[in-house]
Amino acid sequence: MTQLKNDLILRVLKGEKTERVPVWMMRQAGRYLPEYRVLREKYGFFERCQTPELATEITIQPIDRIGVDAAILFSDILVVPQAMGLEVQLIESKGPFLPAPIQSAADLQRITVPDVHDRLHYVFDAIKLIKKELHGRVPLIGFAGSPWTLLCYMVQGKGSKTFDEAKAFCYQQPETAHRLLQMITDTSIAYLQGQIAAGADLLQVFDSWGGLLSESDFETFSLRYMRQIVAALGDKVPVILFAKGAWFALDKMKATGAAGLGIDWCVSAQKARSFAGDDIVLQGNFDPAKLLAPIPVIQAEVKAMLRAFGGHHHIANLGHGILPNVPVDHARAFVDTVKECSINHD
Amino acid sequence: MTQLKNDLILRVLKGEKTERVPVWMMRQAGRYLPEYRVLREKYGFFERCQTPELATEITIQPIDRIGVDAAILFSDILVVPQAMGLEVQLIESKGPFLPAPIQSAADLQRITVPDVHDRLHYVFDAIKLIKKELHGRVPLIGFAGSPWTLLCYMVQGKGSKTFDEAKAFCYQQPETAHRLLQMITDTSIAYLQGQIAAGADLLQVFDSWGGLLSESDFETFSLRYMRQIVAALGDKVPVILFAKGAWFALDKMKATGAAGLGIDWCVSAQKARSFAGDDIVLQGNFDPAKLLAPIPVIQAEVKAMLRAFGGHHHIANLGHGILPNVPVDHARAFVDTVKECSINHD
Repeated sequence: MTQLKNDLILRVLKGEKTERVPVWMMRQAGRYLPEYRVLREKYGFFERCQTPELATEITIQPIDRIGVDAAILFSDILVVPQAMGLEVQLIESKGPFLPAPIQSAADLQRITVPDVHDRLHYVFDAIKLIKKELHGRVPLIGFAGSPWTLLCYMVQGKGSKTFDEAKAFCYQQPETAHRLLQMITDTSIAYLQGQIAAGADLLQVFDSWGGLLSESDFETFSLRYMRQIVAALGDKVPVILFAKGAWFALDKMKATGAAGLGIDWCVSAQKARSFAGDDIVLQGNFDPAKLLAPIPVIQAEVKAMLRAFGGHHHIANLGHGILPNVPVDHARAFVDTVKECSINHD
Repeated sequence: MTQLKNDLILRVLKGEKTERVPVWMMRQAGRYLPEYRVLREKYGFFERCQTPELATEITIQPIDRIGVDAAILFSDILVVPQAMGLEVQLIESKGPFLPAPIQSAADLQRITVPDVHDRLHYVFDAIKLIKKELHGRVPLIGFAGSPWTLLCYMVQGKGSKTFDEAKAFCYQQPETAHRLLQMITDTSIAYLQGQIAAGADLLQVFDSWGGLLSESDFETFSLRYMRQIVAALGDKVPVILFAKGAWFALDKMKATGAAGLGIDWCVSAQKARSFAGDDIVLQGNFDPAKLLAPIPVIQAEVKAMLRAFGGHHHIANLGHGILPNVPVDHARAFVDTVKECSINHD
């Protein structure tokens, strides 16, 4: 194992006070980078995910270019439904499309809890290659979608503002919904265990659509399953839960034993801290659209964010993925400002 | 003036304890009703808005059919940008489209603060006719979009999950954004004054996209302008502010002097009450997707909602508009359960 030269994010996740705030950006390996767009022209989406050399190149692109403190595996949350047996198409600019979504108990017979080493080995191969190529520069974040968020796509069959069909499925057929959620959970735990075995230094679970649920339904259909994931893996590597919009459950998410909680820009640092308590790492929460502002505005707003979080138990990040039309120097201004303005003198 | 036979919602908004909780549904005059779909086949969207007889018929359809305690004017928030001089197309199932959106200070010269009695008289004519046809059965709710939400459409030019272009416009050209917001506010105040003069008994301001902003940007780009609206009109009729997703500003919205605050299902009654305080009416907050559940589930969940709000200072409603695919008897089950199960015995 190569020793990590920069383990800032891991030390923060252990609860340590560090010399400055670590920073990375959700979707940092992605469409705002010209060198990514070159590869996108040449290879299909799943080709990029499934070819370890391509996934490695894309994962590493932002490390030196933007100077982030962690790499995050280039992949997609929908590789899991795909490995479970559902066809997933990813059409650029149109989003995901699952031509034969789950709509009934009978449909569960079309999917399985697969052997992840058979169906998702390409991810583990990519992680091994990324770790080698990173050569200890920064830690590598592995990830998966939350069971609830994957159910949304597996039932609705495509992206949606409100995922009404997925919610209706849960409200009309709760028993089938829970069977599906458990199958996804079992697959995800094996998948994330495989990522750790391959070399992932920490994990993030993306619950992109948790914030569409009421507090009580979030417990029933989302948190219950994320809790299993943290219980299975949280003693092996730090796990960050990011449930976009689910500010109302920060206290319960903390109680899972997660090492960190991601928050979006709609919950202020102060409110997030008051909900989650002092003894947990918060990750976030810059408005991604604000990276379209002029650089001096970005710098001022990043400083305000850093002040609001207070310099400790904080991983700087956006509150959602970076937008494709953000200029590269704006992304770098975000990262540079965190690095320059979060130095702790105590 | 015809005396109102059912003034339950108005008494609740005055702070009175009432014999039961009043109930209406956002988008109650709309696509889930077969009799609405018949008119939709025959007339274009703006034809329905602009023909007082049609707007009246549609507004009144749910009153006896569903038994709600208030009528809400059938119209659209985008009649205001249209009256200000922007072309607005409403394509069924595709949503709004504004072919020439606002992108710069120069574009403000293409719009005006119009004489609403010239450009929006058809709304006032509709309100007069609706009041006559209602004959005092229930109060009539007038409405407008919030300035921020109208800016979203006027700049982005169409619906969006995140309205990044509208937000980028505000972050890049704040001075122009504020000039536009003030023009919309001035138009909206005159428009809502006209609605009151025509007979609207109360008003709701829909800030559908307030919840896309951070707490501080919500103050800057949304609340500042809604405050002007409440200040201008709140002493004439009760005003309800509904800023979807903006749970974080309930305390500040209350401080505007609004008579009621709409909330969505993602903020629990208990949390909303703790943010907003005891002495304000809360309106909401049933998950619209839950009306797709079987009727016994709807009944149980409505009872849970009523218990959570405690029976006073509450107007039962959905947390967003009713979905087009909700069966009529499910909508009626929602309303009936509120009426039967919210009777106060103290």
